[in-house]
Amino acid sequence: MEPVTPALASRIDDVALIDQHVHGCWLTPGDRRRFENALNEANTDPVVGPAFDSQLGFAVRAHCAPVLGLPKHVDPQAYWERRRQLGEAELARLFLPAAHVSDWLVDTGIDGDTADVAGMAEVSGARAHEVVRLEQVAEQAARAPGDYAAAFEEILHRRAAAAVGTKSILAYRGGFDGDLTEPSPAQVAEAASRWRDSGGTRLRDRVLLRFGLHQALRLGKPLQFHVGFGDRDCDLAKANPLYLLDFLRQAADTPIVLLHCYPYEREAGYLAQAFNHVYLDGGLSVTHLGARSPAFIARLLEMAPFGKILYSSDGFGPAELHYLGATLWRRGIHRVLRGFVDDGDWSEADAIRVVELIARDNSARLYGV
Amino acid sequence: MEPVTPALASRIDDVALIDQHVHGCWLTPGDRRRFENALNEANTDPVVGPAFDSQLGFAVRAHCAPVLGLPKHVDPQAYWERRRQLGEAELARLFLPAAHVSDWLVDTGIDGDTADVAGMAEVSGARAHEVVRLEQVAEQAARAPGDYAAAFEEILHRRAAAAVGTKSILAYRGGFDGDLTEPSPAQVAEAASRWRDSGGTRLRDRVLLRFGLHQALRLGKPLQFHVGFGDRDCDLAKANPLYLLDFLRQAADTPIVLLHCYPYEREAGYLAQAFNHVYLDGGLSVTHLGARSPAFIARLLEMAPFGKILYSSDGFGPAELHYLGATLWRRGIHRVLRGFVDDGDWSEADAIRVVELIARDNSARLYGV
Amino acid sequence: MEPVTPALASRIDDVALIDQHVHGCWLTPGDRRRFENALNEANTDPVVGPAFDSQLGFAVRAHCAPVLGLPKHVDPQAYWERRRQLGEAELARLFLPAAHVSDWLVDTGIDGDTADVAGMAEVSGARAHEVVRLEQVAEQAARAPGDYAAAFEEILHRRAAAAVGTKSILAYRGGFDGDLTEPSPAQVAEAASRWRDSGGTRLRDRVLLRFGLHQALRLGKPLQFHVGFGDRDCDLAKANPLYLLDFLRQAADTPIVLLHCYPYEREAGYLAQAFNHVYLDGGLSVTHLGARSPAFIARLLEMAPFGKILYSSDGFGPAELHYLGATLWRRGIHRVLRGFVDDGDWSEADAIRVVELIARDNSARLYGV
Repeated sequence: MEPVTPALASRIDDVALIDQHVHGCWLTPGDRRRFENALNEANTDPVVGPAFDSQLGFAVRAHCAPVLGLPKHVDPQAYWERRRQLGEAELARLFLPAAHVSDWLVDTGIDGDTADVAGMAEVSGARAHEVVRLEQVAEQAARAPGDYAAAFEEILHRRAAAAVGTKSILAYRGGFDGDLTEPSPAQVAEAASRWRDSGGTRLRDRVLLRFGLHQALRLGKPLQFHVGFGDRDCDLAKANPLYLLDFLRQAADTPIVLLHCYPYEREAGYLAQAFNHVYLDGGLSVTHLGARSPAFIARLLEMAPFGKILYSSDGFGPAELHYLGATLWRRGIHRVLRGFVDDGDWSEADAIRVVELIARDNSARLYGV
Repeated sequence: MEPVTPALASRIDDVALIDQHVHGCWLTPGDRRRFENALNEANTDPVVGPAFDSQLGFAVRAHCAPVLGLPKHVDPQAYWERRRQLGEAELARLFLPAAHVSDWLVDTGIDGDTADVAGMAEVSGARAHEVVRLEQVAEQAARAPGDYAAAFEEILHRRAAAAVGTKSILAYRGGFDGDLTEPSPAQVAEAASRWRDSGGTRLRDRVLLRFGLHQALRLGKPLQFHVGFGDRDCDLAKANPLYLLDFLRQAADTPIVLLHCYPYEREAGYLAQAFNHVYLDGGLSVTHLGARSPAFIARLLEMAPFGKILYSSDGFGPAELHYLGATLWRRGIHRVLRGFVDDGDWSEADAIRVVELIARDNSARLYGV
Repeated sequence: MEPVTPALASRIDDVALIDQHVHGCWLTPGDRRRFENALNEANTDPVVGPAFDSQLGFAVRAHCAPVLGLPKHVDPQAYWERRRQLGEAELARLFLPAAHVSDWLVDTGIDGDTADVAGMAEVSGARAHEVVRLEQVAEQAARAPGDYAAAFEEILHRRAAAAVGTKSILAYRGGFDGDLTEPSPAQVAEAASRWRDSGGTRLRDRVLLRFGLHQALRLGKPLQFHVGFGDRDCDLAKANPLYLLDFLRQAADTPIVLLHCYPYEREAGYLAQAFNHVYLDGGLSVTHLGARSPAFIARLLEMAPFGKILYSSDGFGPAELHYLGATLWRRGIHRVLRGFVDDGDWSEADAIRVVELIARDNSARLYGV
C-alpha cells in the first residue's frame, strides 16, 4: 500500500534533528574487532561469535551500506572492507551530514579517541554544544587542590557556563535505588577525603554522587540521566527510573532528562507525565533495536506528553551509530504515526507537529539551542 | 481493507457495557485549568504546557468532538469553547448515554464535586451501584466514638449491604510491598489510637490498612485494588501486583480485582491465571493510552483466562472520560480480535463471545448485577 | 496480500527443530479435569471455570483439532471426546511427529506419569537426550549415604555423563534475588545435615541450592534456569533474570540458558547481549500466549544476538503442548520475520538463516547434538 500521508513522510524526511545526547565519533583507525565490539553495547568482554548477527548489525547492513555505495544487506565482510578503505574521518564526513542533524549535544565525559565538540561540528557541518558529565567533574575536583566541594562547584560552573546541560551516570555507579538526598558539607568533606586517599578515580562513593546531583540541580540547566540499557557495569535492575521518584520530587524546576530507558520506557513515560520537569528520549535503544525500533518508539508515545519526548542517537565511536539513530528514528516514527493517522486517531497535521516537537522543538526550547 | 468480520464489529458496537469501576462525573462548572488538569492523571501539580498534547488530549479531539457536533481533531480552543457553552450537566447527558453502559459501579471514595451513585444513574439513564472505599470507611471509623475496629466493622457492613464490592487504594498509601497479613486486635487498637490522636485523616498506617483489607476479605464481596498507573502519590515501583502474591494466597474465595495495571498488565494477567479468584481490568490505562490502547488491550489478553477480564473506564470528572473509556475499548478490542480472527487463530464466534464476557458477562456474574 | 517471501515460509515449515527444553508427554489415561488443568500453567489449585477459555485453549482448538481430523475451532466437548477416544499414547504418536522435531532435550526432573527419554524418542521417531535437574540430584544425594557434597558430585557426574546439560528450578525455590556465591564446604555440610534431618525432600535450602549451581558450573555443560512464568509456587517478582547478574559474572565459560522468560524476555535478551555465555528461549510462554505469541517472539528478537536465541516448547503432559510449541513458534516467527523483510529491514536470506539458527543450529552447537 502506498503511504496515504505523503506530507507526513516528507516532513519526517526533511526535518533537521537536534541530537540531544551524543558522543564523539571515531576519527582514528581501528581494527575490525574494535568495530564489531562497538555493535554490542552491553558486553564488556570481547564479543564472541558473529557480531553482525544482531538487530544493530542487520541495520548497519540494511541502512548504512547504501550510504557507502554498497547494496542493501551487503555481507559483513564486504561492508568491513569498504569501511576500512574509507577510514574513520571519511566515514564521519559521509554519515554525520547524512543524519541531517542541526545540533549535536555532546556528552564529553567518555575518554576515548573520538571527536570533541568542535570536531563534531567540523566533521558534520552542524552546530555542536557540550553536555558536562558530573562524574568527570568529580574526578577533576578530586585532583584539584583544596576543598573538594569548592573545587567541584568551581569546575562545574566554569565548564557549564559554555555548556547546555549536565549528565549523570549514576546508573553505572550503584544505580538509582536508595537515598538520593543532598549530603551535608561534613559528609561530603569526609567522603572526598576518603576517595582522594584511595586514588580519586572512577567515582562510586554514594555521598559524592549525591553531592554532584544536587549541585547540578542548583545549576538549573537540564540534567540528563543514563537510564536502563547500557553495558553490564550497569545493574539494569537498579537502573529503573521509578527509583528516582523521591529525587524528582526534590528537583524543583531543573529539567531532568531520562535517556535510553529500555526496558523501562513505559515507566519513564509515566514520570514525564507525572512531573512538569521530566523529559525522556529513546537514545541508544532505538539504534540497537533496529527492525524492532518502531515498537519501542510507539511505547515512548504512550503516557509521556508530546512536549516531553526528545530525539537522540547516543552515537559513540563508529559514525554509523550517529546516522542510524536518525535513520531508524525517522523510519520508526513514520511507521507509528502513519498508523495513528490511518486509523483515524490522529490528524496528519497533528502527526507532523508531534514530529517537529520530538525532532527538534522540544530540545530547542529545553536547551536554548 | 473492509473488515471481514462485520458480525464482530456489530456486536462490539451494540453490546451494553458494565463499567465495573468508575467515579462520578462533574455536574458543576469549572474553568479550563480544571479541565486540562483532568487530562493528566499522574501530575499532582498544575500542568504546564499544552495539556491537549497527549494521547488522551488527541483522543478527546478525535472521538469526543463529534459527540458535541464538532469535526474530528478540532483544535483545543474550539473544543474548550463548545464544552464551556454546554456546561457539565449537559455534557454528562451527552457523553454518558453515548458510552452505552447498562451499569456503573461507582467508587464513592473520592470527595469532590461529582455525581453520586443516584446522580450517575439519573444523568445516564442506566443503573448505578456503589463500591465502598475501605480507606474512607477507616476515616469514618476514626471519627466514630468507641472502639475503632468495631466501628470499622459496623460501618463497612452497613455501607456494604447496599454495595456490590469494596475498593482499596493501598497503592497510594505505601504500596503492596511488605507484610499484608491480618494484624492482631491489640495492634489495631494501638494503631487506631495513635492515628486518632494525630487527627485521623488520610490513612497511611500500615496496621490499619491491613486490618481493612482483611475485613473486606471476610465480607466476601469483590475487593478492588488500584494497581499501577495513577497519580504520583503512588510509588509505581511499589504498585506492582506481584507484591500481592502472599495476600492473594490468603484471600481464599473473596474475588480480588486488579484495576488499571499499567505497566504491569502482564504481571496482573499472570495472577489472574494463577488464582481462581483474581480478576483484572485495564481501566484508566485504556483512556490515557488513546491511539496506543489497542497494544495494551492486546496484552491484557495474554495470560489471563477470558473469564477473568473486565471492562471499566475509571472515569472521574469530565464526562468525556466515561465516554472515551468505552469508545477506546470498543475500538481497541475490535482491532485486536479482528486480527486474531483474520489470522485464523480465533473463530469469529469465539471473538464475539469473549467480547461479551469482558464487556458485561464476567462483571454480571462477579457482582451479581 | 500474498506473502512475498515463499522461500522463508517454506523453510520455516520444513526446518526440523531441536526442542532444547521439554518434558515427557503423558502415556497413561486421565480424566478431563487432568487435561483441563494442564491448559493452565500458573494455577496450582483445580481450575474453576471453562479451562478452554484462554489463549492456550483457543490455540488447541485452532491448531490441534485438525491434527485429530476435527474442524478448526471445534468446540471443547467434541475436542475432549476425540482425544479421549484416541488415548494418550495414540495422541503422542500423532502430535510428536507432527511437531517435526529432530531432537528432544528432556528435563527428567518432574516425577509424573510421563514418557522418559527413551519413551520420547520411541513415540516421536526422533532422538532424545537428557537434561539433569540439579534439585533432583540434591534429593538423591540427601538419600545417599555419607558426605552430601561428595554424593552430589558423584551423582551429578554419573548422570551428566550421558546428558547434554543441567537445569535449575531455583526460581521455584526462593528465586534469584540474593547471594548466589559458592558456599564453603563447612556451610554445605552443615546445611546438608540439617536438611537430611528434616527429611531431605523438596530442597529449599539456599546454601545447598547455591552449592548445586556451582557444581553445575564446574561441570561445564549448559545450565538451564527456569525464568519468569511458571506456576504460582514461583514468586514471579523474584524470578527476574536481572537478579542473576552477579552469578552470571561468576559463571565464566559455562553456558547459561534462560528459559521461558515471560514477562522478562527483554531483560533476558539484554543479558544475552551482555554475556558471551548467556542464551535464552521463549519456551512455555509461546504456547500459553497462543494468538499473542508473535508479539512475544518479536520481543525475543530485540537485544539478544541471533546466535543466542533457542527454540523450546517446554511441553509436559498433553502431547498437544509438544506440538503447539512448534506450531505457534513457526507461525509467530514467520509473521515477525516476514514483517522485517517486507519493511526492507532484513533480507530474506538473512531471515532464513536466523530461522535456522534459532530452530536448530544454535542448539546443535551449544549441546553438541
